[in-house]
This record gives sequence, C-alpha cells and structure tokens, in this order.
Amino acid sequence: MNQLDLELETLATFSDTPAPAVTRIVFYEQDLKARAWLKGLCEAAGLTVREDAVGNTFFRWVGTDPEAPAVATGSHIDAIPHSGRFDGTVGVLGGLEAIRSLQAQGFRPRRSIELILFTSEEPTRFGLGCLGSRLMSGVMPASADSTLKDSEGATLKEIRTRAGFRGDLESTLLQPGHYDAFVELHIEQGPLLEARNVPIGIVSAIAAPASMRITIEGQGGHAGAVLMPDRHDAFLTAAELALALEAFAKSTGSIDSVATTGVCDIHPRAINSIPSRVILEADIRDTDAGRRDRMIVSLEQACINLAARRGVEITRHFINRDDPAQCDPRILESVAAVCAANGIPYERMVSRAYHDSLFMAKICPTSMIFIPCFKGYSHRPDEFAAPEAIAVGVKVLAETLVRLAS
Amino acid sequence: MNQLDLELETLATFSDTPAPAVTRIVFYEQDLKARAWLKGLCEAAGLTVREDAVGNTFFRWVGTDPEAPAVATGSHIDAIPHSGRFDGTVGVLGGLEAIRSLQAQGFRPRRSIELILFTSEEPTRFGLGCLGSRLMSGVMPASADSTLKDSEGATLKEIRTRAGFRGDLESTLLQPGHYDAFVELHIEQGPLLEARNVPIGIVSAIAAPASMRITIEGQGGHAGAVLMPDRHDAFLTAAELALALEAFAKSTGSIDSVATTGVCDIHPRAINSIPSRVILEADIRDTDAGRRDRMIVSLEQACINLAARRGVEITRHFINRDDPAQCDPRILESVAAVCAANGIPYERMVSRAYHDSLFMAKICPTSMIFIPCFKGYSHRPDEFAAPEAIAVGVKVLAETLVRLAS
Repeated sequence: MNQLDLELETLATFSDTPAPAVTRIVFYEQDLKARAWLKGLCEAAGLTVREDAVGNTFFRWVGTDPEAPAVATGSHIDAIPHSGRFDGTVGVLGGLEAIRSLQAQGFRPRRSIELILFTSEEPTRFGLGCLGSRLMSGVMPASADSTLKDSEGATLKEIRTRAGFRGDLESTLLQPGHYDAFVELHIEQGPLLEARNVPIGIVSAIAAPASMRITIEGQGGHAGAVLMPDRHDAFLTAAELALALEAFAKSTGSIDSVATTGVCDIHPRAINSIPSRVILEADIRDTDAGRRDRMIVSLEQACINLAARRGVEITRHFINRDDPAQCDPRILESVAAVCAANGIPYERMVSRAYHDSLFMAKICPTSMIFIPCFKGYSHRPDEFAAPEAIAVGVKVLAETLVRLAS
Repeated sequence: MNQLDLELETLATFSDTPAPAVTRIVFYEQDLKARAWLKGLCEAAGLTVREDAVGNTFFRWVGTDPEAPAVATGSHIDAIPHSGRFDGTVGVLGGLEAIRSLQAQGFRPRRSIELILFTSEEPTRFGLGCLGSRLMSGVMPASADSTLKDSEGATLKEIRTRAGFRGDLESTLLQPGHYDAFVELHIEQGPLLEARNVPIGIVSAIAAPASMRITIEGQGGHAGAVLMPDRHDAFLTAAELALALEAFAKSTGSIDSVATTGVCDIHPRAINSIPSRVILEADIRDTDAGRRDRMIVSLEQACINLAARRGVEITRHFINRDDPAQCDPRILESVAAVCAANGIPYERMVSRAYHDSLFMAKICPTSMIFIPCFKGYSHRPDEFAAPEAIAVGVKVLAETLVRLAS
C-alpha cells in the first residue's frame, strides 16, 4: 500500500463509529485528533502552518516569489454521521501527496502552494455547511460567532474557543487577490464518471443548494383516545410534505433537480402519543437556480395548503440558499491540458453536491477535479474510490498546480 | 386546596421536564423519588406495604377478614415524555383518598382493600406497556427479565435490580382468586363525558391494542448527488406507510378504529444525506379485535407493496397484540348503584385507551370508573381534570369499594 492509501486508512480511524462507517463532527475529539495528526504530516513535508480563528488551517509550501498570491488546493476532513472515508479527505491528503510528489521531482514553485483544511464543510453541527469557506469569502458575517449554535445551544464562539481557536472571527475574512487560484480534488459523489469509464471530471459549475427547516405544530394526545377526525397530527403532515417535495423534484423536467428530507424529529416521540410537533429539514438543489427556486415555491405553497387542510401551523426558514458558482475557464483549460498531455480522458461536468469551492469561487478563480467513485455512493459507509483512481486524480492535481504556480 | 389536589400537584413536581409538562420514566430518579414519597403517604394512612420483584407496590388496608381475597384499586404514576399530571395519578392518589375518606367515616372493611401501584404502565422505557400487570397476570413470562431491554441495552433484570427490586420475576405472578375484584379510577382520555356533561363513565370493555415496530432498509447517499430515479429513500417509504395507516383507520366504518405512528427514527438523520434506514412504531386499536386485525392486514399488505415499488426492505414485528377485555357485570352494577344512590349521572362506555385493568381482567373481575377531562386531552402538558370532577370520581370509587369489600 502506498503512503497516500495508508494515510487515508489512518484518517478513517479517527471516527466515532466503527469501520467502515466514519463519523467525525467538527471540533469533537476525533476531529481535533485528526487535525493534530494531519498537522504532523504536513510539518514533516516542510510546510508552514497557519490556523485562523475558526480553525481553517493553511499549510504552505513557500514559493520562490513568496509575495505573489498563492495557488491553493484543499478540502475538508469532517464527516457526517455514518458516512464514508473519501469525501473531502481525498482532497486534503491527495493535495498533500501532490505537493510531496512535486517536491520529490525537485520542482520549485514560483507562487507559494497552499493546502487548505476547511472547517466544517458538513452541516452536521451547526446546521449549515461550508462554515470555514463562508467566513473566508465573507458570505457569512462574523456575527455568526454568537448567532450560530449547535444542538446543545453552545455558540460558535464557545465551541471554537474550547477547541483552541481564538481571536476575532473578522480575521478569517480573506481579501480578493489573496489567492491566484483554487482547485479542489474530490470524489464525484455521483455515478457518471464510473458509468462512462472516464477517470477525470473537470467541474465547470457547482449546483445551487438551498436548505430549509420546517416546523409543524399540530396537537398531541393519547394514541388510543383521540378519534381520527379530531386529530391534527404533525407527523402525518410532515409525511405529506416530504412526499410532495419528492414529487416536485421529479417533475421539473430536469434530471439535475434533487430534493431530500433527511431530518424528521418528532415530539414527543412516543408510540402511544400523537405527534404534536415535527421539525423537518429539507435539502433542495439544482444546477439551475430558477428551477430550484420553483421547487421551493411549490413547497411553500404545499405548506400553506397542508396547514389549512390538517389544522396545523407550519413555519419555515432557510438555513441557507446559496447562489450557484461558475468555475474559472483558465483553470479548466489548465486541467484539460494536463489530461491531454498525459492521455487521460476527461469530461466537463457540473457538481450537484456543494463544496468549499462554491464559496472560494467568490474570492478567486476556482475549479474542481473529480474522480470516479463506486456507484456514485457517498455519505454512506460503502463510499469507495479505488487507489488507482485516486492516484490519477493526484497526478492531474499535481501537474495542474505546476502550471498554475509556475 | 384539599389534600388530594395538593398531592396531585406535588406528584407532578417529580418530573424531568418543567411544569406543566410531566416526564417520569419508570425506574429513573424521578420515578423512584415519587415512589418513596407515595409510600410515605400510604404509611401515614396506616396501610401495610408489599413490593414485588418488578416494583409493583401493594398498599393494604387490612380487613376484618384478612384471609378473604382482597378488593383492589390503583393505577400507575409513570408518565411518558412531555405528558400531563392526571393520567394514572388520579387512580393512585384518588384511590388513597378514597381509602382515607372511608377511614375517616369509621368504615371497617370485611375484605382487605388494596391500593396497587403498577410498574411501567407506559411503554416508554421497554417499548411495551403494562409491564407490572402483564407479569402479575401471567400474560408476560418471567423470561422477560433477560429479553426485555431499554434503549440503552440494559435488561429488565439489571434495571429493576439497580432500582432496588430483587427476587425472582416468577414471584410477581398472582394466582386466580388472589383478588375478589379490581376497579380502577381514571380520566377518560377522550372527549365524550365532557361533551355530554356526564360526570361518571362505567367501563364495560377495554379496546384491543396492537403495536408494531417496522424497520425500513433503503439506500443512503449524498443528498446532492444521487439522482431522484436512483433513490431508495427509507423515509419517503415511511411517510407513505404512515399515511396509508391513517387511511386504513379512517375507512373501517367505525369511529372506534384509531391508528397512530408516534415514532419515526431516521438513520443517519443528516440534512444532506438520503435516509438509509427508518424505524417506525405504530399503534393500532379498536374495540373490536376483528376490525383491528383487518387494519393490521392492510398495513402488512402496504409494506409488501411499498417494498417492491420503492426497492427497499421492510421488516415488522409486533411489540404487543393483546386481546380486548370485557369488564365484570357485578362491578359495573355496583358502580351504577352507587351513582344512582347519589343522583350522579353516568354512562356505560368502552375504553379506547388500554390500562392495567386490561390485564387485571385476566385474573379477577375488573372494571374502571372514568371521569371527564378537558377536551379529552391526555399525554400532553395541558391534560386537565377539574378538582370537582376528581372528587366525584373518588366518592364513587370509595362507595364502590364499600360495596365490594363489605
């Protein structure tokens, strides 16, 4: 087993769930341990380390022109509950491997090359993804320090301070021009590359995700005693909403429309008690913002109709509703040129999943390099990318960094 | 405020949730504290105390013929999460008040009168209600000691031992003839008495409850990346099942058919992850066992159809599937005679909720006395029975005990 595969395997052991399931929530013990371990690897490769106030970590290979804006790569290592070992980690450890391979070849970059570890790409803890890159790009204001809370009610400030990341949150903001380019290596998390037997996807756009929290207030009561016509069951309302959302996503006319209800918390959650309150969390995406917003409008109308029909109250708010990102043509062309020079087939494609690249695109030219993964599975324990597929991705990333940093 | 109302208010303070919501799970700290407090009240009333191996507690007012089978009353004090202060407690503290009122009048019972505190009438901890009375009546075998577990995996034996209740579980079984009669005072938990302005309901039958746990295994994946036609979403399957069950309950032709899906646990429960597994718990009841079983058959067929249509696996098992109980005509007539003698209007009715009486009816003549409660609300914080309504119930119970114990 080569060093990168071994490191991916080691990183997967920093987990709150037994293998193959990985659970690594930002700033909990396993995340902090994994960060310390990664820092050791990067220091061993001679990279300098900078951590910002929210834990974004910047590992820098200093170039011969250290004042020139750097070229960056990177991704995340946090993992949602019971997910896999390749999402994000391939971009972090693969980025490090790309740097080490260039060092071994004796390459000297003109621009510094930075490997970025982004904090909390996953929304698990704060209900909102891409915390680190939202702050770096200014999409999220520093007031999030007190307004963002985890499920236990602790503020971002309390949590990051406990994890050892201090300082004003304002200081995380990067100025335009700070980076010359950003390119993220990632598994596709979709089935297309594998199905077409294409080893590299070059990402030209990143889909626009929106997520909503919907609270349904019905009326509880004894499961045996309240007659069916007298009920205002919050869970049955939630069931209808989730099915309506599925129908909306299936009827836009585009395969790129997807919608998911991943969270449904019932109160009081007792077998003999009618659900009085339900909190749903729904994720709605499309590569086309207008089509996505039409799904949202349909869902909002369904909320109004259902509230009236079932005699319940439904409130909703957006957890996030981001713009889609267009990737940078110069980086796309660099990646394509690397593939062509090496005889590696590639396809241009869109990313339906969102990534820190979505926010990096706001402050510097950005693109992504996708590699195939088994059946497109992601966010589940059997997520898998073959060592050979990862190696091709690392090679393409390394040569792209050479072109961008020279 | 009279003594009984004060005691009901005090009992409500033994709770894991702030007033008015009551949460008192069997053998957790608040339940144990409430039991100790109740024991003190009963000892102050001169009652002897016996506790069995599962914590059923028998407070006895010894009769002039101590060898004659006793007459019993009683109920439970455990409370499901975020419920109210009257379910069960009115039968326990009201039963004590009935005894004290008879003592104050100088009555000397021939048969001993026992107040029973049943263990775990609610299914919260073990997924199965009426634990104490199931064991007393032999409906549940003593092997439950090792097979019944709470959500943390502790066995009944470990839990009861930790709570201080030792001895063989076999010893909880009562022989037929142990009691001459059992009568339970309870709030109706339904709207009929209040709506008709009738202060007393005499229960002639108790509905047959069945509860099922349904596990749906679908396929997880990234909420952005898996296309809609490729999904096998466990939660959407669950949503369809819950709505189908509602439709079955509404279409039996009888108002006495009710069905509730009170629990829906999603795995992995993340906003950006397709639900891969869902566990539903459903409660299905009817006063007619055949009608209830037809709802179950329909639900089972829906499971088969949905599993095929959505490409998921659905397994199901019965948590319980009990027989309905017919109440004892002699006790019904005694209660009716008491009401008539006092000019108190009453109605015969069925109990759609189940109670320990359902199992007591297996080992002795049994009935229940219902009093109205606000809008029929139960298992919710605004559950309410007026002090005057409770007082009427206690009076009828006391005079019924006189007739049965003389």
